[in-house]
Amino acid sequence: MSLLVVGTVAYDTIETPFGKEEMVIGGSGQYIGYAASYFVNDIKIVSIIGDDYQDKELSDMKNRGMDLDGVEVVKDGKSFFWAGKYHDDMNGRDTLVTDLNVLADFDPKIPNGYKDSEYIMLGNLTPDIQISVLDQLSVKPKLVMLDTMNFWMDVALDRLKEVLKRVDVLTINDEEARQLSGEYALIKAAEVIQKMGPKYLIIKKGEHGALLFHGDDVFFAPALPLHQVKDPTGAGDCFAGGFIGYMASTGDSSFENMKRGIVHGSAMASFCVEDFSNWNIKKLDQKNIDDRLRRFYNLTRFEL
Amino acid sequence: MSLLVVGTVAYDTIETPFGKEEMVIGGSGQYIGYAASYFVNDIKIVSIIGDDYQDKELSDMKNRGMDLDGVEVVKDGKSFFWAGKYHDDMNGRDTLVTDLNVLADFDPKIPNGYKDSEYIMLGNLTPDIQISVLDQLSVKPKLVMLDTMNFWMDVALDRLKEVLKRVDVLTINDEEARQLSGEYALIKAAEVIQKMGPKYLIIKKGEHGALLFHGDDVFFAPALPLHQVKDPTGAGDCFAGGFIGYMASTGDSSFENMKRGIVHGSAMASFCVEDFSNWNIKKLDQKNIDDRLRRFYNLTRFEL
Repeated sequence: MSLLVVGTVAYDTIETPFGKEEMVIGGSGQYIGYAASYFVNDIKIVSIIGDDYQDKELSDMKNRGMDLDGVEVVKDGKSFFWAGKYHDDMNGRDTLVTDLNVLADFDPKIPNGYKDSEYIMLGNLTPDIQISVLDQLSVKPKLVMLDTMNFWMDVALDRLKEVLKRVDVLTINDEEARQLSGEYALIKAAEVIQKMGPKYLIIKKGEHGALLFHGDDVFFAPALPLHQVKDPTGAGDCFAGGFIGYMASTGDSSFENMKRGIVHGSAMASFCVEDFSNWNIKKLDQKNIDDRLRRFYNLTRFEL
Repeated sequence: MSLLVVGTVAYDTIETPFGKEEMVIGGSGQYIGYAASYFVNDIKIVSIIGDDYQDKELSDMKNRGMDLDGVEVVKDGKSFFWAGKYHDDMNGRDTLVTDLNVLADFDPKIPNGYKDSEYIMLGNLTPDIQISVLDQLSVKPKLVMLDTMNFWMDVALDRLKEVLKRVDVLTINDEEARQLSGEYALIKAAEVIQKMGPKYLIIKKGEHGALLFHGDDVFFAPALPLHQVKDPTGAGDCFAGGFIGYMASTGDSSFENMKRGIVHGSAMASFCVEDFSNWNIKKLDQKNIDDRLRRFYNLTRFEL
């Protein structure tokens, strides 16, 4: 099945208690693409970069099966740049620099060959861009998933609510779920948010795992306790990429299969945080993934 | 199997966003006792109270199978009293009053009939008291479990380390595990703490669930998403009581059975927080518990 991914392809400078890495690869689009690439091979990326972006990185993406025809390259432009520093406990972070650069004028043009994509992953961008992408599709997709953040709830809530009506799966963190719904208890927040449009809500809790809500059904997947978390950047995107990639590879949108999707997403997020940037998520093989899925399986398994 | 519980039997005044309740029943000993009472009926309580304690509450405890011969009643004494106010998000709380009262001079005398107890639950008290209890036992118990907190790590670390050498299962929260071990990653913290004595470590993460570590084995049990959390007081004690009660009822200290114990503890904690004080945990029946265990089972169940 075909997967359309809209997100950033960017540079990051990241400081964590484990080191500082300057001008490394970042951006939701490439994280989602890499994580999905282990499950599905028809991946179409929609993004924008400057001509400062390294050819080597673009060819690495193509080699993992990503079609980059939808990545606009702006001549003499600079790619989106973010710099951040994580706190000692890795749970919080401060943004030091956000240079939108070419992203400031991003008006996605979906190539004709992308318009009948069956699975759509709308990475965290302005709701206007997310709506524009959906408007350009020629065929109703099988599954539309959207990631967003508190910033868009603060500055573009009405547009966010518009796009939510057209989305099947929403993925946000626990604080964002509380902000969007006005409810503290996550089970109540999920009821409110499902009435806004998305029939499936995934609440990401970082090192505390993820919850999937659908009607009265709830599923919880833990995060794997890891010996080392070097850089949490991209974890949420790799989670989303692993989830949507698995969904696209199976073509089965049942709740039971979404549970497996959540575990696949959690596994990809766990790989992502073990090293800086996309360094770990670029170099996995099937055995790495199978072993990790088995660890997730064993982690919560018990018989009454 | 017989279960010996050492803990406080006390009064609390509790304020949460859902109300304020004055001079209600509190204390780790009675929470542990009630939670365990649904699984085992030979429960011996060691504690201290003033003669201000309500007879009705003592007879309620006896009616749930708790032997109170080990509860010293101090004539003209006042029972331990704690007052606290929870923050709006219920995750943090401020202690407003701690009146030790009779607890200040607590020097537990273990009745002869208690000294061969097979399962020992040492509630959160000074390490000196916990050591004194172990010193008075006449037979090596099958399983000793200990609860403690950051306060004892701050003011009595050496004595705490002494008692830890004699304990099979330690239960603390994630921040306490980090403080005790000096390691941030919980999987590393668990390795360090297991070398201090307890072969089994349970890390409680409140609304984020609980982890069980033993050697290289890890098990994770989520907390159940609840519609309403009215009062978190006693949740950790009910978790411990459900766990040790289940362990005592089965007589099986294998890792597989401890996983079931963790789930039983999580279920009892989930009942506890749904109402103030011990109001909910006092009035359960087997069907309530079976239904809840089934919800826990379904919450994390998936097939690869």
